[in-house]
Amino acid sequence: MFATRSNNRKDRQIREVSLERGVIKNATGSCLVRFGDTVVLCCATIEERVDGWRKGSGKGWVTAEYAMLPASGSKRTPREYKGRKGRSQEIERLVGRSIRSVCDMSRMGGEVTMTIDCDVLQADGGTRTAAITGAWVAAWDAFEMWRRAGKIKTNPLTSQVAAISVGMVGGRLMLDLDYREDSRAEVDMNVVMDASGKLVEIQGTGEQTTFSRQQLSEMLDMAQSGIEELLALQKACVEGE
Amino acid sequence: MFATRSNNRKDRQIREVSLERGVIKNATGSCLVRFGDTVVLCCATIEERVDGWRKGSGKGWVTAEYAMLPASGSKRTPREYKGRKGRSQEIERLVGRSIRSVCDMSRMGGEVTMTIDCDVLQADGGTRTAAITGAWVAAWDAFEMWRRAGKIKTNPLTSQVAAISVGMVGGRLMLDLDYREDSRAEVDMNVVMDASGKLVEIQGTGEQTTFSRQQLSEMLDMAQSGIEELLALQKACVEGE
Amino acid sequence: MFATRSNNRKDRQIREVSLERGVIKNATGSCLVRFGDTVVLCCATIEERVDGWRKGSGKGWVTAEYAMLPASGSKRTPREYKGRKGRSQEIERLVGRSIRSVCDMSRMGGEVTMTIDCDVLQADGGTRTAAITGAWVAAWDAFEMWRRAGKIKTNPLTSQVAAISVGMVGGRLMLDLDYREDSRAEVDMNVVMDASGKLVEIQGTGEQTTFSRQQLSEMLDMAQSGIEELLALQKACVEGE
Amino acid sequence: MFATRSNNRKDRQIREVSLERGVIKNATGSCLVRFGDTVVLCCATIEERVDGWRKGSGKGWVTAEYAMLPASGSKRTPREYKGRKGRSQEIERLVGRSIRSVCDMSRMGGEVTMTIDCDVLQADGGTRTAAITGAWVAAWDAFEMWRRAGKIKTNPLTSQVAAISVGMVGGRLMLDLDYREDSRAEVDMNVVMDASGKLVEIQGTGEQTTFSRQQLSEMLDMAQSGIEELLALQKACVEGE
Amino acid sequence: MFATRSNNRKDRQIREVSLERGVIKNATGSCLVRFGDTVVLCCATIEERVDGWRKGSGKGWVTAEYAMLPASGSKRTPREYKGRKGRSQEIERLVGRSIRSVCDMSRMGGEVTMTIDCDVLQADGGTRTAAITGAWVAAWDAFEMWRRAGKIKTNPLTSQVAAISVGMVGGRLMLDLDYREDSRAEVDMNVVMDASGKLVEIQGTGEQTTFSRQQLSEMLDMAQSGIEELLALQKACVEGE
Amino acid sequence: MFATRSNNRKDRQIREVSLERGVIKNATGSCLVRFGDTVVLCCATIEERVDGWRKGSGKGWVTAEYAMLPASGSKRTPREYKGRKGRSQEIERLVGRSIRSVCDMSRMGGEVTMTIDCDVLQADGGTRTAAITGAWVAAWDAFEMWRRAGKIKTNPLTSQVAAISVGMVGGRLMLDLDYREDSRAEVDMNVVMDASGKLVEIQGTGEQTTFSRQQLSEMLDMAQSGIEELLALQKACVEGE
Repeated sequence: MFATRSNNRKDRQIREVSLERGVIKNATGSCLVRFGDTVVLCCATIEERVDGWRKGSGKGWVTAEYAMLPASGSKRTPREYKGRKGRSQEIERLVGRSIRSVCDMSRMGGEVTMTIDCDVLQADGGTRTAAITGAWVAAWDAFEMWRRAGKIKTNPLTSQVAAISVGMVGGRLMLDLDYREDSRAEVDMNVVMDASGKLVEIQGTGEQTTFSRQQLSEMLDMAQSGIEELLALQKACVEGE
Repeated sequence: MFATRSNNRKDRQIREVSLERGVIKNATGSCLVRFGDTVVLCCATIEERVDGWRKGSGKGWVTAEYAMLPASGSKRTPREYKGRKGRSQEIERLVGRSIRSVCDMSRMGGEVTMTIDCDVLQADGGTRTAAITGAWVAAWDAFEMWRRAGKIKTNPLTSQVAAISVGMVGGRLMLDLDYREDSRAEVDMNVVMDASGKLVEIQGTGEQTTFSRQQLSEMLDMAQSGIEELLALQKACVEGE
Repeated sequence: MFATRSNNRKDRQIREVSLERGVIKNATGSCLVRFGDTVVLCCATIEERVDGWRKGSGKGWVTAEYAMLPASGSKRTPREYKGRKGRSQEIERLVGRSIRSVCDMSRMGGEVTMTIDCDVLQADGGTRTAAITGAWVAAWDAFEMWRRAGKIKTNPLTSQVAAISVGMVGGRLMLDLDYREDSRAEVDMNVVMDASGKLVEIQGTGEQTTFSRQQLSEMLDMAQSGIEELLALQKACVEGE
Repeated sequence: MFATRSNNRKDRQIREVSLERGVIKNATGSCLVRFGDTVVLCCATIEERVDGWRKGSGKGWVTAEYAMLPASGSKRTPREYKGRKGRSQEIERLVGRSIRSVCDMSRMGGEVTMTIDCDVLQADGGTRTAAITGAWVAAWDAFEMWRRAGKIKTNPLTSQVAAISVGMVGGRLMLDLDYREDSRAEVDMNVVMDASGKLVEIQGTGEQTTFSRQQLSEMLDMAQSGIEELLALQKACVEGE
Repeated sequence: MFATRSNNRKDRQIREVSLERGVIKNATGSCLVRFGDTVVLCCATIEERVDGWRKGSGKGWVTAEYAMLPASGSKRTPREYKGRKGRSQEIERLVGRSIRSVCDMSRMGGEVTMTIDCDVLQADGGTRTAAITGAWVAAWDAFEMWRRAGKIKTNPLTSQVAAISVGMVGGRLMLDLDYREDSRAEVDMNVVMDASGKLVEIQGTGEQTTFSRQQLSEMLDMAQSGIEELLALQKACVEGE
Repeated sequence: MFATRSNNRKDRQIREVSLERGVIKNATGSCLVRFGDTVVLCCATIEERVDGWRKGSGKGWVTAEYAMLPASGSKRTPREYKGRKGRSQEIERLVGRSIRSVCDMSRMGGEVTMTIDCDVLQADGGTRTAAITGAWVAAWDAFEMWRRAGKIKTNPLTSQVAAISVGMVGGRLMLDLDYREDSRAEVDMNVVMDASGKLVEIQGTGEQTTFSRQQLSEMLDMAQSGIEELLALQKACVEGE
């Protein structure tokens, strides 16, 4: 079905990725991330308050919100004014967990809340993996601002975290699916890893078919190589200050 | 921390599971499922209509809803009248995908919708895996009713599907976590498999720590053995008509 | 029209009623009540807080919530996520008033709130009367738990309370209407009484016809005899500890 | 406690009542009703459509809505933008049933819907009984307009309907409670009757105490005499065209 | 198109206006305002609280709410239970700004909130200008009540404020448009002025056409003469105590 | 108070403005507009449907939506999931009217709806005027796409439309207020004009003070000169294809 992927990408090849930091003046930290034609704006805001359940803990908290702009997708999607979509909430919970997994929340400078807003400006598949990858840069950017403001001594992020999708499309395993591939995938998996190659989150779904343990293993190999590329790009982005 | 699990369960041992079919008179199909102290009522209703996007396809659709009764958990949870929880929507989407993965929707007798309501009467961890396991029985029960009513010739379920949780608690891998274990788990994974041992869905999360490929593999082994027990119980339940 | 009622019930005869106490582990108190094919799960939770208007009173408060599970009725009813139904709110207000009428709220152990959740698992008419009758048992069960925990010295319930429906169907007065009877009733009345035979609440509606003072009196006689049976069953249930 | 009622009213005496018809130009029918300081504007609109469930019946339907203006009560009440109050829905359902009980909906000129909006401009107790009494006049007014427009041959209202409250306050039975009396009543009852003295609806509640069959009977006697006065005023109002 | 306006009004002539003060017993201040067939009930309530952002300022705040009763317009409009209309919010923000522009909020007797509820009983165009004109009287009425109660020494209103519409209809400039004129206007402008002839707010919209600076000037002349009449009526209303 | 404006701007000088067209691949038309540090993404989508009230007219319709991203402002603003803000709705209604004033909706290629989404990425005052100015470019861009696709013969936009703010700050009239100026302005006015210098919309508000006819005239002069600059930039943007 797919003799060739767009731009002659190879099956194990990720799209062209860019990470741009400090793009929004008012946000504590921000990152504009592109995975090919997928563009997500990630802004991290730190507020000096925590929700009730966290009060008295002495620790901070990291949470995320995710939304698609109405015109970002192939057809206009209504804004979620009359009730949140399950999909959006699922993704924002995933982004929050991913960043928290590499954040020492006892070193955030007290009971503060970081909210990472991930707004999809243009969607072409893989918005959640782009969001996680960019959210980490935005969080790092915000914590550095916080550090320069004297609120914290060191950046509480203990590792990097990045994410990529991998799937089976027409029987072939492919890395970093775009929208055309994703909508036809038999198996769709999102993998989140830290800088040491440990798994933070794995979500694999076979709506049109099922998959074997062997296939799972091959998909994880492929994902790991893609994530290593993303981690290198993140590193370059935050070091290039 | 946990010298012993409740009821002296072994690490690789599932809780006492029961599946009771046909418990609600008005539902097309139903199943009361117990995983230890977790009790979920699954009711499948078939309605002769589909949503707009499905019209003209000639096929049916399977969807699910999930809710916890307010008094089911260790403290009272408010009803979701003022906005759905992300967690509930995440679970009901998972249940829907799991059942659809083993259902030939072109054999449901036309453009009909099956809604599987999973209401948690008592919660002690593993409500989503119990819901999937029970939802399959409720769906089977409803399709049999539909078949006896002459609406379809054969049951469109092409395989069984069941689910179990597995996690790392205090450094130990354990199968089928109860609430006490789940709330302290470093890694929490839910695995959905069909009757042939193929994966339908895998969701692994390491909020407090990360996990290696080796640990993932061990957790999958453990999950598979548990799911095999569940599949046998499902089979006994639907054959014992 | 109705030569015979279901199961050859006589006009003045209530359905087979059962009350099962302590059925939900996590609830402070609970009762599974059956009036024939109507099944309601009543769970009472006590929380050590009161709403703003009650603060400083030194007294507790009792409130109720009522909902039907989607598959409980003869056709699937949507969950009330997008706005509560008037009917549900009317019933939960009635349940709350009924229990408060026999509860000395100054003896609840301070400013605490008891919430009685009445969830209809299976509906065949009379869900509100079953809910009131079961709610009293759940409240009693919760207060006993509270007493055993040393929070209160004596159970603050000053009497029992139970409820039954009575109606005119095809010109005949009948007790404890099931769904088939209720949907055709010309007059429908719900009566709530305490253990001394005093009225707590009376709600009579003649949507298809009107009714005379004489008919009202006959319906009340019939209701009173039914409620006496329910009170005896409640007593047996809470004494059989 | 109440040596005297306001304006030296006797226990069996209703407040000064006025009914003014045709007060809103745009409404099909309207009535401004006053029960002492309680003022309710009732407007009946007829639209040539019915809800889905009524389609194909060839019959009309009558429904009602009820709301209090924010400044109508003794302290400002917020508008119900974020969820309807149970009390409001309970009252509007009661108003709808009351008017339907005296309306031959097969003679409404086809599948049309009459909506009777009851908006409380000033509240001093008894808003629901004033609303029912005024709603009947507004409905009559609208059907007459409909008749003059040639849509129907005769007014489909088959009788009059009116309502009054009666209660036990400080041990004394009193008719047509004002706010001060209502907020201290031990027993509160609303009675709806048609022109032949038959009961349409009876709702009696003893939140602070219970009441005997004998007391119920005395309250009904008192209510009936009040309703007879209201029926006479309605008749004068609609005949004084 | 319009050879004559209703009631033979001249183009520069306002409708018959009446202002009636103190009409609602429970409101701190109130005014029933009529601009021809447009009737708006304005009620001002003062509560001894302010929103969070205003706390610690030592000053009061004035806000407004606006709604149309369902039967007030030429066809029934649903209540705004499922989301506010943009139009209603736009108008209530305009009313609030208009009254605040002539209120010295540091002389309101501390941190209190005045809410002015403007409910349209009958609509025939110009509801927002009638609301502003009546809201000023209601606010004055409430502050006088507050003054008589000893809460403030002097009325904090520093000037009067009134409003009128002016528009271009069929190429002719007209003052105080009624509904028939408003719905056909090419240009529609609302002007709010204080007692010294200074502008408080000007909102001009040309949805069907655009307008020149010269036309703007002529419309403002016309508006000013109409507002002078309204200011005189307000003065007579509040002095006629 | 303001010896100098940011970047030594003169009182009659607009900020640096840029208009970038065709920035979002999936939108029919798009424009990224910058007024200094204010950045708004405007995307126009054309769908082949109209709302019920427009059906059968043979004409199209143009509408707009407006939202601020949470991190766009000086402090994080919550998303409008639980009810729209009046301010947002007011702005989106203004944007819609402005574009419709220069669009011949009978030449849109039938009953189609153009929705222009204006999402504020970064806010520094003047978001509504930037939105209108950018929305026109996005609309033009979308209609050109529609024209190239053969759906229409000519672009239905009959003129250009652009908007600017003008205000009185510390007694000085200033053009194109930034956030710091806007939040201290005594008078704030937004002016929308077409390419012929005719007024489309004028909204002037004096919350902290009032303003004279003379001042209004000076503000309009200032606005007109700013709008002329914007119109030239729009022209360059759409001609530079």
